[in-house]
Amino acid sequence: MLEDVLTAVRKTQPLIHNITNYVTANDCANILLACGASPIMADAYEEAAQISAHCDGLTLNLGTPNPQRILAMCAAGKAAGELHHPVIFDPVGLQASDFRRNAVKQILAEVPVTVIRCNCSEALALANDAAVTAGGVDASLHDRITEQSLPHVLPLLSDLAEKLHCVLSVTGETDVVTDGKCAYCIRNGHPMMRSVTGAGCQLSAITTAFVTAAYLVSDSSNAGFCMDNSAISAVDAAAAAVCAMGLCGEIAAKRLNPFDGNATFRNYMIDAMYHLTPEQFQKGARYTKKTYL
Amino acid sequence: MLEDVLTAVRKTQPLIHNITNYVTANDCANILLACGASPIMADAYEEAAQISAHCDGLTLNLGTPNPQRILAMCAAGKAAGELHHPVIFDPVGLQASDFRRNAVKQILAEVPVTVIRCNCSEALALANDAAVTAGGVDASLHDRITEQSLPHVLPLLSDLAEKLHCVLSVTGETDVVTDGKCAYCIRNGHPMMRSVTGAGCQLSAITTAFVTAAYLVSDSSNAGFCMDNSAISAVDAAAAAVCAMGLCGEIAAKRLNPFDGNATFRNYMIDAMYHLTPEQFQKGARYTKKTYL
Amino acid sequence: MLEDVLTAVRKTQPLIHNITNYVTANDCANILLACGASPIMADAYEEAAQISAHCDGLTLNLGTPNPQRILAMCAAGKAAGELHHPVIFDPVGLQASDFRRNAVKQILAEVPVTVIRCNCSEALALANDAAVTAGGVDASLHDRITEQSLPHVLPLLSDLAEKLHCVLSVTGETDVVTDGKCAYCIRNGHPMMRSVTGAGCQLSAITTAFVTAAYLVSDSSNAGFCMDNSAISAVDAAAAAVCAMGLCGEIAAKRLNPFDGNATFRNYMIDAMYHLTPEQFQKGARYTKKTYL
Repeated sequence: MLEDVLTAVRKTQPLIHNITNYVTANDCANILLACGASPIMADAYEEAAQISAHCDGLTLNLGTPNPQRILAMCAAGKAAGELHHPVIFDPVGLQASDFRRNAVKQILAEVPVTVIRCNCSEALALANDAAVTAGGVDASLHDRITEQSLPHVLPLLSDLAEKLHCVLSVTGETDVVTDGKCAYCIRNGHPMMRSVTGAGCQLSAITTAFVTAAYLVSDSSNAGFCMDNSAISAVDAAAAAVCAMGLCGEIAAKRLNPFDGNATFRNYMIDAMYHLTPEQFQKGARYTKKTYL
Repeated sequence: MLEDVLTAVRKTQPLIHNITNYVTANDCANILLACGASPIMADAYEEAAQISAHCDGLTLNLGTPNPQRILAMCAAGKAAGELHHPVIFDPVGLQASDFRRNAVKQILAEVPVTVIRCNCSEALALANDAAVTAGGVDASLHDRITEQSLPHVLPLLSDLAEKLHCVLSVTGETDVVTDGKCAYCIRNGHPMMRSVTGAGCQLSAITTAFVTAAYLVSDSSNAGFCMDNSAISAVDAAAAAVCAMGLCGEIAAKRLNPFDGNATFRNYMIDAMYHLTPEQFQKGARYTKKTYL
Repeated sequence: MLEDVLTAVRKTQPLIHNITNYVTANDCANILLACGASPIMADAYEEAAQISAHCDGLTLNLGTPNPQRILAMCAAGKAAGELHHPVIFDPVGLQASDFRRNAVKQILAEVPVTVIRCNCSEALALANDAAVTAGGVDASLHDRITEQSLPHVLPLLSDLAEKLHCVLSVTGETDVVTDGKCAYCIRNGHPMMRSVTGAGCQLSAITTAFVTAAYLVSDSSNAGFCMDNSAISAVDAAAAAVCAMGLCGEIAAKRLNPFDGNATFRNYMIDAMYHLTPEQFQKGARYTKKTYL
């Protein structure tokens, strides 16, 4: 069923507004085009709300934040919320500065976020787990979700999703996507994805495309984005995006010759998304879904 | 004759100042280097005029605009105008917000623009065609120039060019470049170019290189940029840039293997520009030129 | 011995804070990951000092400067200096505007810079050599270090390094790295590197990684960064970075097929860094070291 979300993206070609960092904006735009969506990057406060109103979904990415960009995020997020557009928030490196932590608080207070897409360190920082150490914006080695840490991490993430009233999509060795009522554990991906800057940013961007497309096809007459009544819910669509990105990493890794490194791998991941078929998705997606009572 | 413009770029190695968006700035810099020009990206108001005065030509690209960047565009544009440097303006997504619309008005009022490089939606928005719907910054499916719409679109664009006193370079399925006195219809290119973010931005950047080089070789003693007295006029040079970019798309497409997608295609387009020869250009350029009485 | 610095980067995985331009930020992040370091890009004044305090080393790159970014550079530079973190400064195109020149003066006055990484034009501008003409941010043809100009340029750079109390790492046909007490002349590299935007920015970024790693392994108990007491000094580590980058250019060039241009070359350089081994380094590094009395 998750492969239907990819079909939905290709069919609806959702227009995605991204307020994102300048480091990975190009890759995010190209992977959005690769999956069938259409990107707009626009981060001026002066136009943020109006641009978002023209679009179908919104990505807020906290890499390279500054005060103006955060104002734009809040303005766009409110406009998207009023129109019941999905809003995906990637709180990049929130544990690295008070400025980011405060920005996250402000955004979560003002914007109806549909999905928070982050790594484990960021999720744990969100959960105010004092044991989590600050570190870089790329996944730190010590705070990763592994098969061993999964039994400990999964309930924590489910509780956090419930508390934040949104879907949490958290990547690690095993990826977890949960809305508190159910949880996907996803085992796609390739270790080399950690050597590509912005693999997480790209996942956040396509998560917006996938969740937006699911909403558009599920009930085009439905003014509100309702996770529970939709044929494909936000948690399903977010999980589909994680599977798709992981699969693209696997497909890219298979194409590498001995001289190819992380730059070629980056290109091959986007290339793989460009060619990814629902059949490939269905065959390659490796996940389990657990529904809580 | 158009292939001579490519030779001129390689010979004069023009220094191009770009005030552009952060999404595609890297690709624009690399394709400028590929065609033989030298890029400077600088968007602070504090230095915009001085940087532009050091350069030979100026690109103004409205992607990811903000108030400071627009101030810088006006300052750089005026400095370039006083020195009779070619100014190429790409009003990216102007139909998507009032902020962009107002920026376009301000720039066209304050800066002597040599070429406006845009897609059909943007051109029609410029023409205040109320029938044109707002949309994303990438070419929308409904407002494209096709062989069918050409008879309707061509006179509209010629009139607009005449009214705006500049060259219009408008890309679509068929590309149109006109200064109101003559019009090129160009049939190079490949559909996959629409799957690469910033293919239009790259074309705008090399248009600056081509028009600047044509000016530099046509009359180096001529203080003013005079389209009519030059051996190669701005409309010819802008058309040459469109042919060159389209040809690079065609060459890139021929190199693709079944796993290559839009990321590899992007690289191959820049690679093709790096190797493009006047002979390849002459053989591959597909255009007609019509001169109005 | 210089190959040990590469081993040190892979072992210590230093976290590098980069305040850099948006044109080449993605490439800088990917080459940092390729060499074994971890990148954080963050350029808001509001968080610059705190981010830098979390990291192990700092790159300040003057491409696309604006007043806010320069404030952030000073704040981050002071924080890094207090913690004795290496600070690498790339004064991109300082000769192109008064704004950049003044920024350079401010940064050199406020921040304890460990290494200045630049091209010859920029170094000569630093030295107030009035004979040097202003030009683009990419190496101009006329101000390059060649075997012929080396006898003239080398003592000038050594004097400048001594006067500025830092290491100078200056790239050209021959590269020079000197702290005034000794000088490396490095003959790695490939002419095609000049056709890739940001090859210099990438070198600056990995210079930070190399110098930081050398510091981390040389004396982890040493609170201060002491070039003279370290087993691997800053001048050695900076020279190692230049050799490594040049070698990656050579390795990339060997992989090119007749259709590959500067875009593929860019990817292959990063790929080469990803796979670069100490053995390859030792075999391929071509340098001479001269120690002054």
